[in-house]
Amino acid sequence: MQNPYSVADYLLDRLAGCGIEHLFGVPGDYNLQFLDHVIDHPAVRWVGCANELNAAYAADGYARVAGAGALLTTFGVGELSAINGLAGSYAEYVPVLHIVGAPCSGAQRRGELMHHTLGDGDFQHFYRMSQAISAASAVLDEHNACYEIDRVMQIMLTSRRPGYLMLPADVAKRPAFPPTRALSLTLPESQESVVTAFRYQARKMLMNSSRVALLADFLAWRFDLQPILQRWMAETPMPHATLLMGKGLFDEQQPGFVGTYSAGASSEYVREIIEGADTTICVGTRFVDTLTAGFTQQFAAQRTIDIQPQGARVGQTWFSGLSMEQAVTTLRELCLELSFAPLPVKPAGESARDEKGPLTQENFWHTVQQALQPGDILVADQGTAAFGAASLSLPTGAELLVQPLWGSIGYALPATFGAQLAAPGRRVILITGDGAAQLTIQEIGSMLREALSPVILLLNNDGYTVERAIHGETQRYNDIAPWNWTQIPRAFSLKEGAACWQVSQAIQLKEVLARLSQPQRLSLVEVILPKADVPALLRAVTRALESRNSG
Amino acid sequence: MQNPYSVADYLLDRLAGCGIEHLFGVPGDYNLQFLDHVIDHPAVRWVGCANELNAAYAADGYARVAGAGALLTTFGVGELSAINGLAGSYAEYVPVLHIVGAPCSGAQRRGELMHHTLGDGDFQHFYRMSQAISAASAVLDEHNACYEIDRVMQIMLTSRRPGYLMLPADVAKRPAFPPTRALSLTLPESQESVVTAFRYQARKMLMNSSRVALLADFLAWRFDLQPILQRWMAETPMPHATLLMGKGLFDEQQPGFVGTYSAGASSEYVREIIEGADTTICVGTRFVDTLTAGFTQQFAAQRTIDIQPQGARVGQTWFSGLSMEQAVTTLRELCLELSFAPLPVKPAGESARDEKGPLTQENFWHTVQQALQPGDILVADQGTAAFGAASLSLPTGAELLVQPLWGSIGYALPATFGAQLAAPGRRVILITGDGAAQLTIQEIGSMLREALSPVILLLNNDGYTVERAIHGETQRYNDIAPWNWTQIPRAFSLKEGAACWQVSQAIQLKEVLARLSQPQRLSLVEVILPKADVPALLRAVTRALESRNSG
Repeated sequence: MQNPYSVADYLLDRLAGCGIEHLFGVPGDYNLQFLDHVIDHPAVRWVGCANELNAAYAADGYARVAGAGALLTTFGVGELSAINGLAGSYAEYVPVLHIVGAPCSGAQRRGELMHHTLGDGDFQHFYRMSQAISAASAVLDEHNACYEIDRVMQIMLTSRRPGYLMLPADVAKRPAFPPTRALSLTLPESQESVVTAFRYQARKMLMNSSRVALLADFLAWRFDLQPILQRWMAETPMPHATLLMGKGLFDEQQPGFVGTYSAGASSEYVREIIEGADTTICVGTRFVDTLTAGFTQQFAAQRTIDIQPQGARVGQTWFSGLSMEQAVTTLRELCLELSFAPLPVKPAGESARDEKGPLTQENFWHTVQQALQPGDILVADQGTAAFGAASLSLPTGAELLVQPLWGSIGYALPATFGAQLAAPGRRVILITGDGAAQLTIQEIGSMLREALSPVILLLNNDGYTVERAIHGETQRYNDIAPWNWTQIPRAFSLKEGAACWQVSQAIQLKEVLARLSQPQRLSLVEVILPKADVPALLRAVTRALESRNSG
Repeated sequence: MQNPYSVADYLLDRLAGCGIEHLFGVPGDYNLQFLDHVIDHPAVRWVGCANELNAAYAADGYARVAGAGALLTTFGVGELSAINGLAGSYAEYVPVLHIVGAPCSGAQRRGELMHHTLGDGDFQHFYRMSQAISAASAVLDEHNACYEIDRVMQIMLTSRRPGYLMLPADVAKRPAFPPTRALSLTLPESQESVVTAFRYQARKMLMNSSRVALLADFLAWRFDLQPILQRWMAETPMPHATLLMGKGLFDEQQPGFVGTYSAGASSEYVREIIEGADTTICVGTRFVDTLTAGFTQQFAAQRTIDIQPQGARVGQTWFSGLSMEQAVTTLRELCLELSFAPLPVKPAGESARDEKGPLTQENFWHTVQQALQPGDILVADQGTAAFGAASLSLPTGAELLVQPLWGSIGYALPATFGAQLAAPGRRVILITGDGAAQLTIQEIGSMLREALSPVILLLNNDGYTVERAIHGETQRYNDIAPWNWTQIPRAFSLKEGAACWQVSQAIQLKEVLARLSQPQRLSLVEVILPKADVPALLRAVTRALESRNSG
């Protein structure tokens, strides 16, 4: 007999309606009945993970590629295990819906001494904890369920931040009607008078500028400005850069793209182009300590136009409620109207050379650079990986996933799992340190179970190298348990589903990467690197951090 | 040059003063400077873990054996990864001090855009989240540090629940003076009049009872009543039992101990002895749904004496502020004064028999039973392991660590790491399911690094068997990625430091366990069990849970 249409089905139809076709999580007794509906759903697929934090990271990685993601955990133990992953999604504006299977409404009302509670009869402790890291949250009941699902998902999708739904086991089964229309995600129109005033001020500033530069960051990406930004830079080329978190926003092979801006840790060339312009247009930027070598960016307010989700600023004037899209569209039109000095000549990049000798951070990144292909998705963990990736020049259509604001080590490995499921046809390359990989290693088992083919570059530099660079270079606390990395895939699968290499010479890495242009199975390359070698950018950043921690 | 004595040193001296000689955690840039002091401390040893949740579980396991434990994480990412472990410590009354290395006070005051924050300039989000799962918490600053360390630790130790300290990097280095006296942990004396009234009421009830039984639980253990309870049962034997969480409180080989009480899922014999008495004395009991087959315990208030941390009840009368120790002491004295019917004859236990044939839940537990030794520490994960362990008869001095109220799967493996460090001379046996082990497997690497010798019985029953028993027996969501279990230690260590076996016959298990009476290295035994076979107790419990989730 077909089960009647229920709240669970409604929720799943809403996920599918937003393009969320994979639900990550771990089963638990309070979500098993909901899971029956997941298994039966035609468009949403269940992806069991080894633990909840990994599932949250995977959902985040999926959402960064697919636009939104979802996570299912069980009450208390499951949701709290995942909460650090959701906090990262919140900090970095990634819409992930966290669905928490909860005890039945009756048991909650009676305050029963249920497992997975603190034993005090209060069932809202964890809901309250999640509020700080959710754009919207709700406790579903038989009356409000469909309405609250819509409300939370709308806010999640428009604010690009996580939503939280507590779904008691009995509520999941309550009868419901299918949604009759798609969720409305239209934002309020910017007021015409605000747009006019913004245009006037911006025009005045741009007209008086002989050098204009653009600096974009991750919020431009999250709020879907990539197409319009790329079109703008193609129509009226101007020098432009991104911060590390925004890397991948632009086609980095196009004229005008000057590189990754890292404030005081940038190359002199990039810094002068971006900070030295008469007007710098900042789109969705966030100047995080680690991405600016400790807040060394230098922008005078009167020489910047700053576009943010809540409004825009021209010089000293703030235009509240102006949407990012409207602001960027207006500037693009102004640039078509005005004309600027020709693009500066970019200094010749380092020529591609065959790297030789033992691997170092420097020849490692050069070798990776040469192996990159259009459309690749790179996922780089915090530490030497993310900071090293800042120096890469991404091929057309390639993307970089990093998490430097929240900065949770171990994030990248499960995020790779999610990203690969979101883009099965693209090559996903994970670059992670050994210390970071230890936190979340078991998700390699899930990748093997799903027969995915990511390329994993495991940087074995014998411990927490980024921490060594900050403080305690030779201290025991920066050591980790030494693992047998190339044995890991074999331990996490009964099939011989993976290919593993250990490389210590640049030429070996080059040869291995040459074989992985179209990987057919999971590939793990253990890359032996010197213990205390760090990318140049990281050296500048860690020096700033150490002095600030000692301040 | 010797660094001057600092707040960090003061905190470490306080840990050492409470018998906390191991500090578990993961380094991060906000705690590195504190870690220098840990490395230099003569009595507190740093134990790096593979991730923070595992570290929290390890600290909890350590605290259950050593009396108290401590955990060091970094701000935001680290503390939130650990929070589920602390919530378990809170729910189950385990004193673990959570020290969180935080950004410098100045950066916090200025609300800077630091990594590991939500990016909103508010540095107290996570402190507030932790308040729900902490008996006391504090943000340390240069003025309050030593005072607040003492306050939080005192409350933590007397309430037997976690404490939380946010330690900004600069505060850790502030000068301080060493503590001049030990922390005062004396509880207020019970009022004499309350004791007298309690004695009067209890005497009246006991005098009118021809059958008296005692049921104790984990709170009796946490509040250090084990010695007095054991003495009482030796002086004036009476039928006594524990709930699963209290197992190990008594010498189970002594006359009078009747077994594990599980309400409606108990044996008829145990249930009749405990519930059928004229007076049942309950000491520190908590009737959790999973431990009572869904609240099927039957005790009339007028026939029970209930001793709890905040006071005691005799029949309908509540005596507030009576300490557990005072109440138990009073009852012990009354029992010496009065006399009861002789102990009932315990039905003959099943005789030890040589188990044959393929392993099943039944012959697995019989085989384990025969291999147990006095003083063993058993750690059983949620699921078939913990519920199966309920049927064991523990040898003298043996203990069982389980976490059935909070019930976070994956807890037991890192808890084993902590327990073994707390009791290096004892044999620690971990019993865990395959699904559970996947959540936290990387801590095997830490055990190997520390050259520990626990015995790990890995029950491979091809997925989440306890969930199958509750709901969805053949559903795909209860499957897990199939792993190559006996390859795991080899992947997590460069040395051949472990011994591994795979057993599918009862006789094989018996032979392997015979070789492990004094294990000299980490031993992993993969125990092949039927997919849907569960211990009898678990069958009764899951039936109750499923009907309640469907209710």
